[in-house]
Amino acid sequence: MVIVGGGFGGLNAAKALGKAKVDITLVDRTNHHLFQPLLYQVATASLSPADIAVPIRGVVSPYRNIRVLMAEVVKVELEQRRVVLDRGTLDYDYLILAVGAQTNYRGHASWAHDAPGLKNLADAILVRERVLRAFEAAEREPDPEVRRRLLTFVVIGGGATGVEMAGAFAELSSFVLKRDYRVADAATTRVVLAEAGPRTLTAFAEPLSRKAEEQLTSLGVEVLHRTGVKGIDARGVTFEDGTFVPAATVLWAAGVQGTPLTASLGLEIDRIGRVKVQPDCSLPGHPEAFAIGDMAAQRDKNGVDVPGLCPAAIQQGKFVARCILDDQRSRPRGEFAYLDKGTMATIGRSRAIAQVGRLKLTGLLAWLAWMAVHILFLIGFRNRFIVMFEWIWQYITFKRGARLITGVDREGAEPPSLRAQLNVTTREPAEVAGRTA
Amino acid sequence: MVIVGGGFGGLNAAKALGKAKVDITLVDRTNHHLFQPLLYQVATASLSPADIAVPIRGVVSPYRNIRVLMAEVVKVELEQRRVVLDRGTLDYDYLILAVGAQTNYRGHASWAHDAPGLKNLADAILVRERVLRAFEAAEREPDPEVRRRLLTFVVIGGGATGVEMAGAFAELSSFVLKRDYRVADAATTRVVLAEAGPRTLTAFAEPLSRKAEEQLTSLGVEVLHRTGVKGIDARGVTFEDGTFVPAATVLWAAGVQGTPLTASLGLEIDRIGRVKVQPDCSLPGHPEAFAIGDMAAQRDKNGVDVPGLCPAAIQQGKFVARCILDDQRSRPRGEFAYLDKGTMATIGRSRAIAQVGRLKLTGLLAWLAWMAVHILFLIGFRNRFIVMFEWIWQYITFKRGARLITGVDREGAEPPSLRAQLNVTTREPAEVAGRTA
Repeated sequence: MVIVGGGFGGLNAAKALGKAKVDITLVDRTNHHLFQPLLYQVATASLSPADIAVPIRGVVSPYRNIRVLMAEVVKVELEQRRVVLDRGTLDYDYLILAVGAQTNYRGHASWAHDAPGLKNLADAILVRERVLRAFEAAEREPDPEVRRRLLTFVVIGGGATGVEMAGAFAELSSFVLKRDYRVADAATTRVVLAEAGPRTLTAFAEPLSRKAEEQLTSLGVEVLHRTGVKGIDARGVTFEDGTFVPAATVLWAAGVQGTPLTASLGLEIDRIGRVKVQPDCSLPGHPEAFAIGDMAAQRDKNGVDVPGLCPAAIQQGKFVARCILDDQRSRPRGEFAYLDKGTMATIGRSRAIAQVGRLKLTGLLAWLAWMAVHILFLIGFRNRFIVMFEWIWQYITFKRGARLITGVDREGAEPPSLRAQLNVTTREPAEVAGRTA
Repeated sequence: MVIVGGGFGGLNAAKALGKAKVDITLVDRTNHHLFQPLLYQVATASLSPADIAVPIRGVVSPYRNIRVLMAEVVKVELEQRRVVLDRGTLDYDYLILAVGAQTNYRGHASWAHDAPGLKNLADAILVRERVLRAFEAAEREPDPEVRRRLLTFVVIGGGATGVEMAGAFAELSSFVLKRDYRVADAATTRVVLAEAGPRTLTAFAEPLSRKAEEQLTSLGVEVLHRTGVKGIDARGVTFEDGTFVPAATVLWAAGVQGTPLTASLGLEIDRIGRVKVQPDCSLPGHPEAFAIGDMAAQRDKNGVDVPGLCPAAIQQGKFVARCILDDQRSRPRGEFAYLDKGTMATIGRSRAIAQVGRLKLTGLLAWLAWMAVHILFLIGFRNRFIVMFEWIWQYITFKRGARLITGVDREGAEPPSLRAQLNVTTREPAEVAGRTA
């Protein structure tokens, strides 16, 4: 059988079948499983890429029935039961698709260049470099207006990712700028979080999202409601009410959509391009093929729309593994039921919110709970230990451990795209002399 | 005054002047100080980039008389006492140049593409990606001959970097391949270390370099002497005796040379492009301008040619800081004397050599000494702690913590250059089906 995708869904399905009588080929286009909930901490220089990613091979190496291929899936031929890779093909008896989702620009693909999303390590490293380069450019910039643009960060979308990024930007700016820069200063920094709807964090109860907004405001973040985006370019963001915010760094966190591979299946998709699946997560008309995680649209056994969250993908991965074992034992498959174990979001030091059933937590307690849960869900002792150490160290020192700009090519120059980006911010050549005797 | 370069020389000069009555501008084209002796461990997936690099700003932030600029130096106008940056200029009263060296391809610049050197983080990440991609391609490759080429690593140059890279390649291949791959296997791996001269590690006494070669051989490395290179391309390496070794990964560690900036000073340079400096490290005719570290050619007070090593750069950095303070107090400057504190190189687990005066160490003892010295010389508690943890963890588990391929662009595809590189290795499309039921 073939599993496509080594994210939370695919990896958990593979592990659940790791002792079963099936030969599994796990295909992913990267070599690592990524712990996406902490991706924003890579983007804001708190953690290193290797702290939140593990080689997929390393995770499944104890299971001799699983082989791993790093390859791109070009298409899935459901009738022929065949997966076409960029090089070669794979026949299957069972197929589990778990390819995830991609950033949704709502028809404005051209915004991607100036407002990257946050879906993989390359995104996170790109955002980290932009932020750090903006700080560096601000330090060299004599024009206060241009400097202000360089130190303005706009986050589009008030979901968990948007809120976490806005909080982390605000902390990074204030802690790092205050200590390490001379010209650029924390008072000039501006972090804007723009949400199109009437409130942020709609996955939480209203009092909690209000609390989160208070916490954001206390960090200096400007939270805007009912503020849709009209345009984004290298200069900044234009909102639907006509306001223009000059900003060097814009992050897009306003939702995801299905991938082209999902659309190419030729099956019914929902309005954000996720494929509609049966109660047992199989594709309509193809009981041998499953789709799970962010790529699948499902209303579960209890009438709940399964959310695009890690726990849902993990649960579906384990569920479809059970379905396959049921088939082998000629037992009827069950229907998937999503178990909501609660939701949490962090805003900054001692600032977080958590909601578990009727229990609602805010502040320090929610923050500690958030950290404990995220460390437990990381894979492997090494990553747990290092992330815990980094958090403790950063709590004590206010430093950021991964403030690295590595995107220099081998001749030492910035890649063309970044140079272009910097040029936009530095239209007039200026004297930086003066402060040196 | 202006310091160009935040490496060992420049940073130590800056810190030594951090409490003096001088206004310092420290210019570097990156934002970080790099601990180069451990760069090969990033290239072989043992350490993360952030473990061996610290933000320059963070290091000098306690000194209020130092400001840091991330900028490229275009030229130095010695007569006008001015440094021209890619944007703006800096006038100076004193100048310390510490721009380092670059990989020396001995007139074959075209080899750089297929045989990267190891001078900065971008180099190390590139090499890491190539090695890991070669493993992945080998796992998919049905043709045993192509597979063998993918699993062949050639290191050119038997100095410390070459020896350390060859040993680390051998360990990475055997530990990682053995556990995590199914088709590609450790027995197929080949690591070749080619030295043009009669022996490796000429900086060490002959018995020690013989010992190091024994240790390399015990890891499976083929050590070739008197083996110069005639050509390198995407297929492999042709040696001067006509032998062709097909290899997907080639690393160039056969020496360094001065940078174009050093040449552009218009002063006398030695045969590898280093500028010849006075006994006080100043440039001839320019007592206000110093050159230190790998860019400078100097015979010291005791007639010793100062080697291109970190300790020499550190000592020169502190020395020129003292010269400037001597000037301020109208005292005569001294002459630089290099203090040789010993040399060491590591080959692998419990395999290393060290030479301190007459004391010679090999094996476990040398290895422990090597680790202790390198951890002590790292900057900052965080990096020391994390590197120590990684080494202990890897010693126990044989795992590599940073086996990450992050070079995917935002659409998830490999950058064109890497894709081209992969295509070379996979000329015929092949079926990878068969092992999947």
